[in-house]
Amino acid sequence: MSVSFVPVPEGSDFPLENLPYAVFSTKSAPEHRLCVAIGNYVLDLKAVSHFYAAEHQAALQSTTLNLLMSLGHEAWAAVRTRTQELLSKGSEIELNDIKNVCLVPQSDIALHLPAQIGDYTDFYSSIHHATNVGIMFRGADNALMPNWRHLPVGYHGRASSVVVSGTPIRRPLGQTLPDGAEKPVFGACKLLDFELEMAFFIGGPGNKLGEPIKVDDAWQNVFGFSLMNDWSARDIQKWEYVPLGPFTAKNLGTTISPWVVTTAALKPFLLDNFPQEPEVLPYLRQTLPFNFDINLEVSLKPADDNETLISKSNFKHLYWTPLQQIAHHTITGCNLRPGDLMASGTISGETPDSYGSLLELCWRGTKTVELQGGKTRKFLQDYDEVIIRGHCEKNGLRIGFGTCAGQVLPALPVDQ
Amino acid sequence: MSVSFVPVPEGSDFPLENLPYAVFSTKSAPEHRLCVAIGNYVLDLKAVSHFYAAEHQAALQSTTLNLLMSLGHEAWAAVRTRTQELLSKGSEIELNDIKNVCLVPQSDIALHLPAQIGDYTDFYSSIHHATNVGIMFRGADNALMPNWRHLPVGYHGRASSVVVSGTPIRRPLGQTLPDGAEKPVFGACKLLDFELEMAFFIGGPGNKLGEPIKVDDAWQNVFGFSLMNDWSARDIQKWEYVPLGPFTAKNLGTTISPWVVTTAALKPFLLDNFPQEPEVLPYLRQTLPFNFDINLEVSLKPADDNETLISKSNFKHLYWTPLQQIAHHTITGCNLRPGDLMASGTISGETPDSYGSLLELCWRGTKTVELQGGKTRKFLQDYDEVIIRGHCEKNGLRIGFGTCAGQVLPALPVDQ
Repeated sequence: MSVSFVPVPEGSDFPLENLPYAVFSTKSAPEHRLCVAIGNYVLDLKAVSHFYAAEHQAALQSTTLNLLMSLGHEAWAAVRTRTQELLSKGSEIELNDIKNVCLVPQSDIALHLPAQIGDYTDFYSSIHHATNVGIMFRGADNALMPNWRHLPVGYHGRASSVVVSGTPIRRPLGQTLPDGAEKPVFGACKLLDFELEMAFFIGGPGNKLGEPIKVDDAWQNVFGFSLMNDWSARDIQKWEYVPLGPFTAKNLGTTISPWVVTTAALKPFLLDNFPQEPEVLPYLRQTLPFNFDINLEVSLKPADDNETLISKSNFKHLYWTPLQQIAHHTITGCNLRPGDLMASGTISGETPDSYGSLLELCWRGTKTVELQGGKTRKFLQDYDEVIIRGHCEKNGLRIGFGTCAGQVLPALPVDQ
Repeated sequence: MSVSFVPVPEGSDFPLENLPYAVFSTKSAPEHRLCVAIGNYVLDLKAVSHFYAAEHQAALQSTTLNLLMSLGHEAWAAVRTRTQELLSKGSEIELNDIKNVCLVPQSDIALHLPAQIGDYTDFYSSIHHATNVGIMFRGADNALMPNWRHLPVGYHGRASSVVVSGTPIRRPLGQTLPDGAEKPVFGACKLLDFELEMAFFIGGPGNKLGEPIKVDDAWQNVFGFSLMNDWSARDIQKWEYVPLGPFTAKNLGTTISPWVVTTAALKPFLLDNFPQEPEVLPYLRQTLPFNFDINLEVSLKPADDNETLISKSNFKHLYWTPLQQIAHHTITGCNLRPGDLMASGTISGETPDSYGSLLELCWRGTKTVELQGGKTRKFLQDYDEVIIRGHCEKNGLRIGFGTCAGQVLPALPVDQ
């Protein structure tokens, strides 16, 4: 690997080995355009698109990542190699002294949703999370549903309400059934929670309706990964979700980080897949490793105080891999499109300090999370900000995902 | 109402009072463009867009209905009035003798999805259907879930797999748990079913995330209605759907009719809303009537035989109205966008001949449906075609929805 002519500070999320994609704009140039992060800068890919192969230029001049996602893994590899060349010492950019034209300080940019998300699916793939929730609601003996180890349970989410990091989330109004009550009541959600998740974007041309993607081919459909906070209204969810699943308890907003870290950048951090017992059906048997060592952290920041780290988890705790998720999602024939978003579900580790939601960290309200300054939380309060971070580290190489943050705004008046 | 210079045959779905929108193309002009149906013809709206107000022309020149949907109800009314003028005797089209340019026989066109569907939501709003399913799976005493009369139960569906009438649907492969088995098996769906539904398209500018739409304002967000068949793999659904709802059992394909019948055209067929008991919470209390007398029919056509009418139902059986569905969908802040699709759920009437699925018509496989030629069905067989039709009729006025049809193709080989 060469060294970049752009300075990369110690501990940066964005060395030359990462180059996550995003969509950005500046005050003086408000049109959306693609970039990659490098150190504290972004490289404006539209401004340098003429340095790339002709067949990749239209994608690099787009306002979203969808076209680049659709080109497939060979194009992604070629573009990545070329970007690394362009950011290395002695490149055309450095020699032609056009840094001022194509490198923009991250402090000067606004970041947007990286893609037009056609459909968003949320899985439920962490065995520790599913077990915790099961114990809380059904007892230890029936914690995991009978289907859970046989298929990656998932459901269709709401694409329109996926927002980029930094977008405030309003505490929702909704229906709940108070404990012991006979009739539901209407009001502001009292049990607002976050869910620590990761999500990946579908790439490649996609499959046709009626044509499943095989599990060992599915890597070609994984463009890259972002952090996600799947905000959840626990009290609303409890009342509404039988029998068709979560609906208004989840569509109040889902936050993703602006950066899409490519599968190529994650390759040094590959791990063996999570061991599965019993053996899964053949269509889910995966021969390739597709698990990653990604450290995940959740911090909570009250309005008038510093943030406190409240959970440390890891992507590697996921029982089901993205490839199994794709194979299962398409097995009945569902077509995927470039830009579709697939989320992991809450990622909890084995130990209580690694749980990925307040529901688990406070064990259904029976415990509290301690914050700096003596504050405590069982669920989120107004103006709380939830900040998710992620990074990989190995043999001196560190790549990061940036942040996925959102602040809770107070609910609207009930009689609005 | 004037009379059209285009002949409208007796019993046609498409008199001058209807004018449903669609997206069409022809062999000689394969680009997608908007039309309305009139008799056995369509009026090419792009070809006549210069006859409309300047601010509506871009929408009429589009390749989908999304832009027209986004313009809002005042624009819809103005465009409708102008289209009725243009198709009336003595109009510019007739006088300038440009019929050959802008009127195309329906026999010469291909029809496409009417809009780019951002998100698709499926409700569960027929009380007879929900009761029937409840009796079958939980017994008569617990037929309706406790939440059912308090909120319009719904879930997020898969937008990518919504297809237009005429698209074949492949029998899905998937996981099922055979009765009495300990482990799931993999294979072709054995209990493939249709669901008779109607769906409406969201119009207007949409709402912002965090800003619910009030129930009595929601009529401004209903652009128009189509027929829907929500194909369902009952055996796959039964195994997968706990706890997060239907997933691969539904995303194998969802068929809609190509025509979008506007709310304006349905106005003569308005009915009082379905009586609701107990009274709903204030955010769902609707003062406007928004129920419609729409006759619905399902026919089943085996590959080698004529079709048999197997169900007659009606939109009016829906307990929850589209306006209540919108108010509930957005109550926690979910944003709707023009082109989003909201489906009713299976529409069953009170009597067994009005049930909207084979699950109900054959009462979970305990009865059969009799077809012409001595054939019977409990669930769909390969090459069966399901044809849904709908029309309104009152005081000599008849408007129809065309057809929503799809044929079942055999499953792929299991070891593909």
